[in-house]
This record gives sequence, C-alpha cells and structure tokens, in this order.
Amino acid sequence: MDNMDTKGFAIAIMAAGKGTRLKSKRPKVLHEIGGQALLLHVIAAAKTLVPAEHIYCIIGHEADRVRTAVAPTGVQFVLQAEQRGTGHALQMLKADFALTGASLPEHLLVLSGDVPLIRPETLAAIRDLHLAERAAMTILTAVPADPTGYGRVIRVTPDGPEVTAIVEQKSLLPNQLKAPEINSGIYCFETSKLFAKLDALDTNNAHGEFYLTDVAAMLVADGERVVAVKADSIDEVLGANTIAEMMHLDAAMRLATARRLMASGVTIFRPETCIIDAQVTVEPDTVIEPYVQLLGATRIGSDCRIRSYSVIQNTTIGDNVTIRNGCIIDSATIASSALIGPYTHVRPDSNIGENCHVGNFVETKKVTLGKGSKANHLSYLGDAVIGTGTNIGAGAITCNYDGVNKHLTTIGDNVFIGSDSTLVAPITVESGSYVAAGSCITEDVPSGALALGRARQANKLGWAAAHKAIQERSRKGC
Amino acid sequence: MDNMDTKGFAIAIMAAGKGTRLKSKRPKVLHEIGGQALLLHVIAAAKTLVPAEHIYCIIGHEADRVRTAVAPTGVQFVLQAEQRGTGHALQMLKADFALTGASLPEHLLVLSGDVPLIRPETLAAIRDLHLAERAAMTILTAVPADPTGYGRVIRVTPDGPEVTAIVEQKSLLPNQLKAPEINSGIYCFETSKLFAKLDALDTNNAHGEFYLTDVAAMLVADGERVVAVKADSIDEVLGANTIAEMMHLDAAMRLATARRLMASGVTIFRPETCIIDAQVTVEPDTVIEPYVQLLGATRIGSDCRIRSYSVIQNTTIGDNVTIRNGCIIDSATIASSALIGPYTHVRPDSNIGENCHVGNFVETKKVTLGKGSKANHLSYLGDAVIGTGTNIGAGAITCNYDGVNKHLTTIGDNVFIGSDSTLVAPITVESGSYVAAGSCITEDVPSGALALGRARQANKLGWAAAHKAIQERSRKGC
Amino acid sequence: MDNMDTKGFAIAIMAAGKGTRLKSKRPKVLHEIGGQALLLHVIAAAKTLVPAEHIYCIIGHEADRVRTAVAPTGVQFVLQAEQRGTGHALQMLKADFALTGASLPEHLLVLSGDVPLIRPETLAAIRDLHLAERAAMTILTAVPADPTGYGRVIRVTPDGPEVTAIVEQKSLLPNQLKAPEINSGIYCFETSKLFAKLDALDTNNAHGEFYLTDVAAMLVADGERVVAVKADSIDEVLGANTIAEMMHLDAAMRLATARRLMASGVTIFRPETCIIDAQVTVEPDTVIEPYVQLLGATRIGSDCRIRSYSVIQNTTIGDNVTIRNGCIIDSATIASSALIGPYTHVRPDSNIGENCHVGNFVETKKVTLGKGSKANHLSYLGDAVIGTGTNIGAGAITCNYDGVNKHLTTIGDNVFIGSDSTLVAPITVESGSYVAAGSCITEDVPSGALALGRARQANKLGWAAAHKAIQERSRKGC
Repeated sequence: MDNMDTKGFAIAIMAAGKGTRLKSKRPKVLHEIGGQALLLHVIAAAKTLVPAEHIYCIIGHEADRVRTAVAPTGVQFVLQAEQRGTGHALQMLKADFALTGASLPEHLLVLSGDVPLIRPETLAAIRDLHLAERAAMTILTAVPADPTGYGRVIRVTPDGPEVTAIVEQKSLLPNQLKAPEINSGIYCFETSKLFAKLDALDTNNAHGEFYLTDVAAMLVADGERVVAVKADSIDEVLGANTIAEMMHLDAAMRLATARRLMASGVTIFRPETCIIDAQVTVEPDTVIEPYVQLLGATRIGSDCRIRSYSVIQNTTIGDNVTIRNGCIIDSATIASSALIGPYTHVRPDSNIGENCHVGNFVETKKVTLGKGSKANHLSYLGDAVIGTGTNIGAGAITCNYDGVNKHLTTIGDNVFIGSDSTLVAPITVESGSYVAAGSCITEDVPSGALALGRARQANKLGWAAAHKAIQERSRKGC
Repeated sequence: MDNMDTKGFAIAIMAAGKGTRLKSKRPKVLHEIGGQALLLHVIAAAKTLVPAEHIYCIIGHEADRVRTAVAPTGVQFVLQAEQRGTGHALQMLKADFALTGASLPEHLLVLSGDVPLIRPETLAAIRDLHLAERAAMTILTAVPADPTGYGRVIRVTPDGPEVTAIVEQKSLLPNQLKAPEINSGIYCFETSKLFAKLDALDTNNAHGEFYLTDVAAMLVADGERVVAVKADSIDEVLGANTIAEMMHLDAAMRLATARRLMASGVTIFRPETCIIDAQVTVEPDTVIEPYVQLLGATRIGSDCRIRSYSVIQNTTIGDNVTIRNGCIIDSATIASSALIGPYTHVRPDSNIGENCHVGNFVETKKVTLGKGSKANHLSYLGDAVIGTGTNIGAGAITCNYDGVNKHLTTIGDNVFIGSDSTLVAPITVESGSYVAAGSCITEDVPSGALALGRARQANKLGWAAAHKAIQERSRKGC
Repeated sequence: MDNMDTKGFAIAIMAAGKGTRLKSKRPKVLHEIGGQALLLHVIAAAKTLVPAEHIYCIIGHEADRVRTAVAPTGVQFVLQAEQRGTGHALQMLKADFALTGASLPEHLLVLSGDVPLIRPETLAAIRDLHLAERAAMTILTAVPADPTGYGRVIRVTPDGPEVTAIVEQKSLLPNQLKAPEINSGIYCFETSKLFAKLDALDTNNAHGEFYLTDVAAMLVADGERVVAVKADSIDEVLGANTIAEMMHLDAAMRLATARRLMASGVTIFRPETCIIDAQVTVEPDTVIEPYVQLLGATRIGSDCRIRSYSVIQNTTIGDNVTIRNGCIIDSATIASSALIGPYTHVRPDSNIGENCHVGNFVETKKVTLGKGSKANHLSYLGDAVIGTGTNIGAGAITCNYDGVNKHLTTIGDNVFIGSDSTLVAPITVESGSYVAAGSCITEDVPSGALALGRARQANKLGWAAAHKAIQERSRKGC
C-alpha cells in the first residue's frame, strides 16, 4: 500500500463500547478472534494506510484495560468517558484536537473496533474514491442476503456514486424498502466539514444518542458531495454482537487462511478443522494433517509433515521436518530434516538442529541440540547446550534447578548419556564420553571417559517366598 | 417445575424394543447420546414431573440389562416379554396394576424411551392442556419439513385443540395428504378411559401389532374429548432408528449446550467441535478452545482457559485456572489460579491446590497438593499428601505399590524433592527438607534435613576408546 | 468381480499430467487422499477387473517418481515424454504395443489417474454394456447439478444407449445447451477400432492437443456403434484440479467409510470428525469417539471403546479392548480385554496380551507382553519379552541400546519390577523375582530372588538451613 496517497489522512477507531450482549467483563474490542483482539485486527488494517501516530482509538468502557492491551501498537487514545453514540465519540475527538492544538488532518477515516475482517484493500478503495470524487463524506456499503433491519444507503442513481441519505429501516419510504445496500458504519470525511456538523447533531432518536449517520443528510442539504463505495463481500463489514457471532468470524478468518495456503501448494487435510493464524507462512508441498494448530508468527518450510493434534506457535521450522502427533511447540527453531514427537513439548528458546530426533514424552526448554543428536524418550532437557551426534538415553534428566537458581548443563559431541541418568547442573560432560545408565552425575566428565554413579547390584536369593509370607500376614492383620 | 399440579399423574416409558436397524447387541434404549443412555434422558425429563416411583419403564428385549442400567433412578419396571406393539405394552401395565392392586393414577403420560430430546417444559405443557381441556387423551404433535410417511393428527378445526383421529399415511384422505402435524407417539390419557379401551384393540394391520394410536378414534367415537398440543420444535420428538440418526441427536444436544454457554458469556472457539454434556456449568469469561470435552458433572469457574484436546469429567475447577493442551482430568478438584498441563493426567481423588503447577507428562491419583506446590515434569504421584510450597523435581516417583498393597507418601511444606528421586511408601518427608537428585528414599526424612541415597560417581578415563574397539569386534563377530 | 468376463480386456490409466494448478513439485497422481495416492486408488479399482500385467499406466511428468511409487502393484508403464493430450497418450500406448510386439487386447478401458473415487461396480457396468452392445466405444457419463462448462454426451434418443458425439461447451447447439450428461473422460474401446483412428486426430483446438473425445464422432461417422452408460453418482467421476478439491474428495471417501461402519452396528460419535481408511474393519458394538483416526489395514473387534485423539494404524485389536485418549498405535497386536492409554505409544512389533494394561506416557517397541501384565506409567519398553502377570513399575526403563547395538531384555512371569528401575540389556529377570525400586540392574536375576542395585540412604540433619545461607550469598554475589 502506498502511504504517499494517504498524506493528510487520519483514522478514528470506535472502541469505547461495552458489548452488553456478550455478558462478559472483558470489553468487546478485546475479545479475540484469529488469535488476537478484534481491535488489533482493525489497527493492523489501519496501519497499512497511515502511521500509528495518526490513528486515534476512541476508548471508554474499561478504557485502561483497552489502552494497556493496545498501547504497543503506538496508536493515540481519546477518552469518551460516557458512551453517547458515534457522533458523540467524534465530538470527543474534535475536543481533543482543540485541547492539544494538533493540526487537523485533511481527511478522517472512521472505523469500528469490532469489525475485524476489514481489509487494507477496501480501506484503500474508500480513500481513493473519496479523493477522486472530492467528497465531503464517503460511505462504505455492503449488500447482504437480506437487508431488512439495516440502515440503508440510498443512491441518487443506481450506478452513480452519489448518495442522498442514510435511512433507518423504520424511516424507509415504500419504494426504498428493497434498497439493497446497507451502511457499514465505516466512513471517510473531509475533517473540517465533519467537525462543522458535529455540534448540530441531536439525540432525538430511540436510543437518545448522537448518531454520525445524520451527518450524511446534513452535508447533502448543504450541497456537499456524499458518495458510497461497495465492499466486495458482506463478511468484511460484519460486526459481532454475541460470542457466537464472534466465533463465526474466527472460523471464517482462519478458514480463509487455510484456503490461501492450499492454493499456494500446501496440502491441508480437513482444512476446516485446522486453526491457522493469518500471518503463518507454509511453503509448498508441506502436508498438514487434521486438527493441527499453527499460531502466531510461525513459519514452516517445504516438504514437512505436521501430524494431527500438534500446536505450533511463533516457531520457525525448516524443510523436510516431521512433527508427529500431539507436539506442543512454542517460540522455538527446528532445523531441516528433524523428527519431533509424538508428544514432545518444545518450549521457548529451544534450538533443535538438523536431523535431530526428539521424541516421546520429552520436554525441552532453553536447549540447543546439535546436528544429528537424539533424545527420544521420557526426558526433561532444560538449560542445556548439547553438541552434535550425541545420544540422550530414555529417562535422562537435566537437574537445572536447585530450588533457588537455574544452572547450565553442557554436553559435548558424540556423547552417550545412558538411560535414566541424572545430570546435576552446573555440569559439563565432554565430547566422546559415556555416562552409564542409571547414574547420577554431579562432577564434570572428561572427554572420552566413562562416568559411573550407581550402586553395585546384589541378588538376595529366595527373598520372594519369605516376602510373600510377610505381606500375607500384614494383609490379614488389616 | 411444580409437582403440585402433577398429583394423580403417572408416566409410562416404552423401553421394550430391540432396535433391529441398529445391528447391535445392546438394546436400543441403552445406546448413549450426550454422555448417557437414551432411556436415562427420558427418565430425567419424566422425573421433573412425577417422583420416580410413579414412573413405569416397560421393558422387554434384554430386560435384565435395561433394568440393571436404569435401576439407580428408582423407577418401576413392567415386563413386556413379547413385543406386540404400543397397545400391548400398556396392556401389560394394566395387568401389572391389577396384579399388584396398586391404585390407578388418574392420568397417565406415555413417553418413548428412544425419544431423548423431550424437554420438561413440553411435558408440563401436555399436562397443562390435558387438565385444562379435561381431555380423555392429549396428543403431542410436531410439524416436520415434510410430513410424508408419518401418521398425521387431524384437528376438528385448524386452530382448535380438538382432534378427530390419528391417521396413518396410507389411510389419509386426499384433502388430508398435506396435513402438517405428525403424531409424536407421546400422549397423556385419563387412565381409566385408556384402560377401558385396551382390550378392544386388534392386530388387523401391516405389522400385526396392537397400536395405541387406534385408541384416539375409539375415544372420539365415544364422544370423549381428544386434544393435541404442538411441540415447539420437531427435534424434540425425533427418535433414532439408526446409529447415524443417534449420532445426529448427540451432536445436536451437545451443540445446544455450547450455544447456551456462549449466550451466558463463555467463549467457545469452534463450538461445534467441543463435546459438552448438558449438566456442565461454566462461568462467564472462561475461554474454551477447539476440541475440548467437558463431561458429566463438571463445573468450571470464570476467567479460565481450557486448551484444546483436554477432556475433563466430573471435576470442579476454580477461577483463573489454565488447563493446557491434552490434559485428562477425572473426578478431581482444581483450585483457583492453578496451571495444569500440557499432557497431565489428573485421576480421581486428586485435589490440586491454589496456584499449583502440575505439568508435562505427570500423573496424579489420590493426591492432595498444597497451595503453590509444583510437579512439573514426568512424575507419577499416587497416594500422597503433599504440603504447600513444595517442589517435586522432574521424574520423581512415589512408589505406592509393593505388589500387593498401596501405601501413603507424606511430604511436608516447602520440601525440595530432587529430580529422578524415588520415594518408597509408606514414607514421610518432613517440612523444609531436601531430597538429593537421583536418590532412592526408603526411610523418613526429618524436617530440615538433606536426604541422599545415591552412589558416588567415578570417572574411568580413556574408557570410550577401549569400549569402541570391543563393540567393533563384537559387531564383526555377528 | 468375475474376471472371466474380462478376458481380452486391458486398462490404460492416464497418469502423465503435471497438475499445474496444484502448485506442487509432487506429480498430481501421487497426491494422497484416503491414505493413499490418487493413482493407487484407480489401480486398485482396475485390478478388480483385470490382472496387473494388463494395466498400463501412461506416465510422463516426474515419470520416475510415479513409477517408483506404483511399481509394487505390478502394473505396466508406458512413457509419454511430452504431454500432448489424451489422444497422444494412447498413441504412445499404440507405439508401445508395436515396439514390444505384444498382442493387442480386444478391448481397452481408459481411466484417469486423478479420478480416484471410481468404483469397481461402475467399471464392471461399463464392461458389461460395452460387450452387450458390441460397441466400438462406450462412454461413462454423469449428471452434475450444473453441466455448464463440461463436454456433453449427446444421445441419439434420450433413453437409448447410442451416442452421436461428445460436444464441448462452446460447440453446443442451442437445443443442446441443457444436455444434462457430461463426459467423465472414462471410456471403453474396441482396441483395433480405437488404434485405427489415433493417427487421424489433430491439434486444431484451443490447447493444441490431441483429444481422445474426437474419436467418438469419427467412429459414428464410420457407422460404428458408440454408446454411453451413466454413473450412479457424480462424485465417482470427479477429478481434482486443486488441493482444496482433493481434500474434499478425501473427506467424502472417509465419511463414506464411517457411514458404512455405522450401518453395520458400530457407534461413531461425530462421524465426520473421524479419519477412517476404506480398508479398516470394525466389529459391531464397538464405540469410536470423536477425533479418532483408524488407518491402513487396521482391524478392531467388538465391544471395544476407542477414545478421542487416538491414531491406530495397521493394527489388529481384539474384543472388549479400551484404547484411552491420545494413544498412537502402529503395526501392533492388542489382544482382547486389554486397556491401553491414555497417551501410550505402541510402536511396531508390539504384542500386547489379553487383559494387559499399558498406561500413561509409556512407549513400547518390539515387545511381547504376556497375559495380564501391566506397565502403567512413564516407561520405555524396547526389545523385550515379558511374561504373564508381571508388573512393570512407574518409570522403569529397558536400556536396549549401548550406542551401537540393540539388546534384548527377558522378564519372566509374575515378576515385580520396582519403580524407576533401569534394566541394562542384554539381561534376564527370571519368574517370580523382585527388582527393588530405583535399582540399576546389570546382572541376571534368578527366579524368586530380590535384586537390589541402589545406594543406602543418608540423612544430613540441619543441612537445609546451612544450604539456604550459601544460596543466599551466591545470589547476592550475582
């Protein structure tokens, strides 16, 4: 998107509402779909048009909570302490400009914080028509299957851009009842002309609120140019008033992502069952099985196979990697040709090298695993740097925590860590060494050495018969 | 529901059929949807109207198996050894009353054991109309999309309650072919008037059975009042003749529950993918991810997050709890702000305290875990009482079983159990003590002590080179 | 299917195309649905009609890769190095017959390698009509909801079998625009009459390719008999040009399998969520929960319960077995009344005996577990033969790998392996013996003996207070 065309633009986002029908303490615009808050989706679209400092979120209900959640985006905030309608929200914005003495933007695009599927392409189309038509107000419309109940946008001629008014359902004239275009609540204004009308709004309506929609008729009455542009699809302008509606938007957003990936050469079995966030990238010829979740900033290479019930978040995966069933992977890096799972928990700051195998019921955290190393069964590996070609036996554990601090385990190349070993960190096991199965290792192991830390076995012959007799007596004693 | 209005009522439930089309050894009414047998759903609805001792299940096919499954509800049973139709079933009931000399109830509501979605509200509506109209027979009807093939209920006037007859599809007059109301097979009778007609039923029909539907015309012929009441929705009176149809009812029942929870402020991503039983309660602002199962008498507080692939049954969970992916939790209690999973198996009689963390590949059974204690990796904790602020290291195991009996492990407050420790029960580890990593603990540990039970480590320098040579020779020897 | 009627038949399968719209390196016919490549589904159907040596796969794009994938079926291959249309493909086949001097089959059935749902019954129907009508060419047609865009098969009379031509959409006469039958691209020819026309095909069409469809009109012009037979359903002749379309075929194929099983007495909750391959068998009264995957040549007995998120592949399971949540089972045998899971990984060559319990976070590989034996928690059992009635304690591990070779663990009947034991293979633990918890076992254990291999415990009183002071100082030192 070319910001050059968007000089002189600012964007206001309505984010003050409570969302009473949600029955939730959480403010409406902070409910999440597609992995992030509704408002963050809208801000992301807005930022494709103008820099963050020209975006004004108008907040009110639970304002502090909304501000905290959204502040990292760098947008501005305007407080609408009472929520008295969309017109009132922009009165607050106007007052804020007056107070700070900031220079008015030439044009103001008004978005809804709870209409999260709005696309950057559509915002650009509004801007372009607004400029091309030199309009005082440009209205985004959409055509639903049944427009009944919605405010309708009435055009001067069916094919021309010019609009006469936005008319509520109950005020429609008989010949307007079938008017197909509804008002999306998304507008672009020439800022000075909008601001000149805000004080003239009244609350003579069913909800006793100041309605921004009334500005359209006012501007037309002044002979100003008010135009409309139609969204490609109704989905894009859908808001969500109930949790069920929000869940519907969530599924739609993620299915669209799955479809886009399939069209680019990714095989996704049962695409409607996968949860894939919009920013995820996957290279062609990777196969994704049903019930997989790819979240956040995850990037997956080509020729991988991601098996069912795995959840991968903020992780980079190379080519030709297999993630078997039920892996939970978060904020990690997995190099090419690695084989992970089933049921591996790869926690943040795990760097799994090329050709590594990390298997069943293994957990890693802050671990570097060198090329070709393996940890296939029932291990906990935390705070460890492990070289190449090393084999970590079943049940081996790095004891990284002493109750107060975490310590590092360092293991060299081509080391053999026997099954059920315990490595008490801080500790170093040098390259080419062996640790015998069942050993508790508390001292460093030199290169090429065998470390043993286990008791000698003793067999007590005939013990079982004697023991059973004792048990039997104890049982009868109960 | 007010039982006062239901004095003099009894309920008969038809539960004798085989369900031939199911191709199953299991009797039809014992097939399960929504987590319990069809018949149990019907009995639960019936019990909202009358006490269990006034409910008569008419059983026949696999009668003993049905009786055993249903007996805990406290209902009565009447045997219909041969299954010769709905009229025959009530002949058996009549004979049973005669045999036992029990006083006849004034009114008899007749339900089908394989129509599990019937609602208490609908049963009350039948009762109320039946009483208000002083009817001899009241018929529950429903309006399907296409009534073709169903027995039709013909009213005297379209809007009046009175009925002339129940007419089978093949006997419909030309002007009745489009009659929209079908017979649900659910009726209320004045008992004495019903019983007076039962002996007059015949088997002159395609299946050679005694049909209860014939009673309607008989009563009308006698000048008795026969009326009809329409169910709100066709779903409620649907039976299931095939397993596929049953699975459809199961999904419908559970989706209805998910929708009800969403309407009350619970966020459920992909609600159609979650399996939520009807009696589950969840407080607002809890988030349920896709593919979660909430079963039985589970109660979940507010502000929790239940992650995907977790199955929670008969469990009480506080507020602000996170259940991570793939947890299996059964008959447990989890206090507020606890963090469980991923892949934790919490078995019956586990009481997980406030702020506890129980993590990856950990199994608990008959365990009390005090406030703020942690067991984060690869542990088995069975038959244990653990205090507050205690840390159970990775791989630590309570050895509760000696091959014959189970024994208790007692661990105090602020204890540090090192990784890969083995605690051989019965054993007590007192508060403030430490168990060194890799120890096998067979004797009690006093308060504030360090317990060590591991061998001293030895490093054999140069061992690896020698060992490789031996292995190499053994390999060539193969 | 009776191969007697199919003497003189050969089958050609078009498998040379690239599938450009898939955006994939993998050749189109090797994309998988229902657990195997498209082409393998078509070959499986073809083999019900003729032996493999009479099936000719015409390969081109990535010919070597296709040949390698399909060679095990025993079919023949013909190379179409350039892909110049369906007519050109059969020119290559004709040339191949000429080159090898093989005798021409009397009839040639032509299938598409990317139309995988074609049923054996339909192929037999084509053959039967072709022979009964003594046709030169027999065309398989289907009737889609909207035929627009497809090549249309025009019959001489609506009800007669005879065809006048196959007409592309753009060449349809006004009165043919609504012709409902489309050409499936599947034909049967009298081979000599087909081959006689191949050289007369031209490339005067939009794609500049040799079209086999043109042969129909040529044969009719010669007075030959060209007939058509309609497929029962459009699904059967659907090809897949995009990955999304392929995923649709995959879901349809597997849902059909689930429906077939339900009709035979298997309960499958949420059947559309299960992934069940076509060759899987399940006996009546088994219950399959949502999100289960049954793959490959899996056979499951009666009265089993397969819980959610389990994936079972190429495995035989007896009666009355419970597989709890999240088990991964591959190429194993599980005897009747066994209880597996949750989260058990049963790897190839595991033979789990009657009444065995294998539980939480346990992995087995090349293991025989005798009747009634148990391994319930956090174990790795690899390369082991275990007798009957033996109990493997929590966390017990067979150390089967010494860094170079794998070794066997042998455990007798009624053995008690204490928790957290390590069995260093090769090793034998004889019947009736005990291994104490926490032991590392490196020497054989005689029958009835108790083997101990652990250090004696020491309690250092007052250690905790001293240790905390040191930790505190070290912390401040940071």
